Amino acid sequence: MDAGRFDAGVYSRRLAAAAAAATAAGLAGLVITPGYDLRYLIGSRAQTFERFTALVLPARGRPTLVVPRLELAAFTDSVVTELELPVRDWVDADDPYRLVAAVLDGPEIAVTDSMPALHLLPLAGVLGVLPLLATGVLGRLRMVKDASEIDTLRRAGAAIDRVHARVPQFLAPGRTEAEVAADIAETIIAEGHSEVAFIIVGSGPHSADPHHQCSDRRLQRGDLVVVDIGGVCEPGYHSDSTRTYSIGTPDPQVVQHYSVLQRAQRAAVDMVRPGVTAHQVDAAARDVLAQAGLGEYFIHRTGHGIGLSVHEDPYIVAGNDLPLAAGMVFSVEPGIYLPGQWGARIEDIVVVTDEGAISLNHRPHELVVVPA
Amino acid sequence: MDAGRFDAGVYSRRLAAAAAAATAAGLAGLVITPGYDLRYLIGSRAQTFERFTALVLPARGRPTLVVPRLELAAFTDSVVTELELPVRDWVDADDPYRLVAAVLDGPEIAVTDSMPALHLLPLAGVLGVLPLLATGVLGRLRMVKDASEIDTLRRAGAAIDRVHARVPQFLAPGRTEAEVAADIAETIIAEGHSEVAFIIVGSGPHSADPHHQCSDRRLQRGDLVVVDIGGVCEPGYHSDSTRTYSIGTPDPQVVQHYSVLQRAQRAAVDMVRPGVTAHQVDAAARDVLAQAGLGEYFIHRTGHGIGLSVHEDPYIVAGNDLPLAAGMVFSVEPGIYLPGQWGARIEDIVVVTDEGAISLNHRPHELVVVPA
Repeated sequence: MDAGRFDAGVYSRRLAAAAAAATAAGLAGLVITPGYDLRYLIGSRAQTFERFTALVLPARGRPTLVVPRLELAAFTDSVVTELELPVRDWVDADDPYRLVAAVLDGPEIAVTDSMPALHLLPLAGVLGVLPLLATGVLGRLRMVKDASEIDTLRRAGAAIDRVHARVPQFLAPGRTEAEVAADIAETIIAEGHSEVAFIIVGSGPHSADPHHQCSDRRLQRGDLVVVDIGGVCEPGYHSDSTRTYSIGTPDPQVVQHYSVLQRAQRAAVDMVRPGVTAHQVDAAARDVLAQAGLGEYFIHRTGHGIGLSVHEDPYIVAGNDLPLAAGMVFSVEPGIYLPGQWGARIEDIVVVTDEGAISLNHRPHELVVVPA
Repeated sequence: MDAGRFDAGVYSRRLAAAAAAATAAGLAGLVITPGYDLRYLIGSRAQTFERFTALVLPARGRPTLVVPRLELAAFTDSVVTELELPVRDWVDADDPYRLVAAVLDGPEIAVTDSMPALHLLPLAGVLGVLPLLATGVLGRLRMVKDASEIDTLRRAGAAIDRVHARVPQFLAPGRTEAEVAADIAETIIAEGHSEVAFIIVGSGPHSADPHHQCSDRRLQRGDLVVVDIGGVCEPGYHSDSTRTYSIGTPDPQVVQHYSVLQRAQRAAVDMVRPGVTAHQVDAAARDVLAQAGLGEYFIHRTGHGIGLSVHEDPYIVAGNDLPLAAGMVFSVEPGIYLPGQWGARIEDIVVVTDEGAISLNHRPHELVVVPA
């Protein structure tokens, strides 16, 4: 295996499955511009914005790469050559949207979620029909991970667990969140990731902001510190785990609320099995918090799928009636946030199996008290 | 001035001009998801993908931020608070596309180029009408730079010139392209940029690939080396300049072809003045190369606008009948590429003035011969 992608056979199977799904959906095909779907289908990490580049995957016929001539070289790391996929290259004066139409048998297509308006609107103009989102077609394929993907996600989970095991030594009164984040960044790489994906170090009142990243605030005795971190394990799959730390002995009310949060996280994980909906998993965590009078402090969804993208389907959110299936991988991460005061979150990545959830993270769920 | 943005008055004027342009285009308004247009209009660097966040700019009425409640904090660096713009926040179970519709007087809108299909298609569904691209409305505003922007771009040009002045000392037979790139990255920051935007070091046969980045290839006596580099100067404007270097004395045929390239670049710059089209500038360079029998080796457009984005309107490309106007800023960068052999490119950023082009780069255009 190339470190940057799986064997060509993996992509060949994915392309065939995607074409079959397009056929089943009654579509003429899929049009996939650079992004995670393209990486999933042909292993390409190409990034391009203003020049139209796409894999055109007809329901019947060969997947074809439409690409500006001068960006052809960006596809040498993909399986385009190894699978001998046809390439239709174009130069600046050509109309690439007509090249797309020529590969397809009809105008009904689905496009990748990330296709920018810049390309989507002229493509819709040439086709004369508004496309659908390919999530409905590719989403199922991308959501249900195969053995190679789960193996990679398991490695990623073990790597981020090793980072959390070292976090307490970075936390001390007087250090800034940014200093802690720099230590964590180094450790994320040292423990086996190829890239840092994100680092949240939210201390004191910042712990109450779930999307705080880090700042020059100095840690103080009595702070809670939410540490939500992730990296990339090759070929391209993410880790993502949150633990909450306390600088010195926490306030008794914090301890009491935190124990409810632990129960909420556990209730959501226990709810996971094939056939249960994403909504039900979200509700399991939410109900525990609501019954303890903390419902209003849980202001985000319970989780998100993870894989090539840090956030992807399935979203574990109220109203999502998607039934879970074996092989789906997502976060379970309820939190409580008292604005301006403190917040806490517990997050593990879990895999759905026929026997229920298997967690890819194994650090203890207790509030980690570090000396102050 | 905050280092991260201009004074609030700059954005206030831009918002008013954008609303006026929307009115003139007969639109109910603009919908701008995170990206360069949002940064241009309110100074926000927020990045968000799967949760819908947008500035809704009605033709008449107050610009309104639609934002997930938990991403509100990402807008504290923008002018939303200082200009007291209304905010409509939403939580995971809400429908943000209906919030957009509620701010607008009608369904005819234009959207930012980068809006992903994930949001564009449901938004079009709620509005019942396919949006237009906002390029036609905002493009003109973003293309014609004001004095603050030109001043920032001039600082960026001077900074990248200082980097090119130091490039010869990094080039020596036996060093890899990647080693050279690492030295250049450090120098880009040392000379006054806040970020490295991109670094191309294409040596020997790699110089013939205009989108090569860098590799472990070692420089050799006789190589041409295309060095195309850029960074960010705060608040967020880009430099971009290319020079071609020769490791030891170049081949006489290379020297002869290169002199044609110099003439081609000069011809394009000399063509620049208000009223001339982008197409004519491109043709000026292309004609010089074609007359010397080198036309087939010039395989990309002559240039691109530059500002908050490295590549933006106006594109200096065949078929673009846009008349140039004073204040537009773009690259002029013809190249010649003999596949598998060698390539060369000369690139300066120029500002259109009533008196013609003013270059923001001042390094000599000659092939820079470094000792081998």
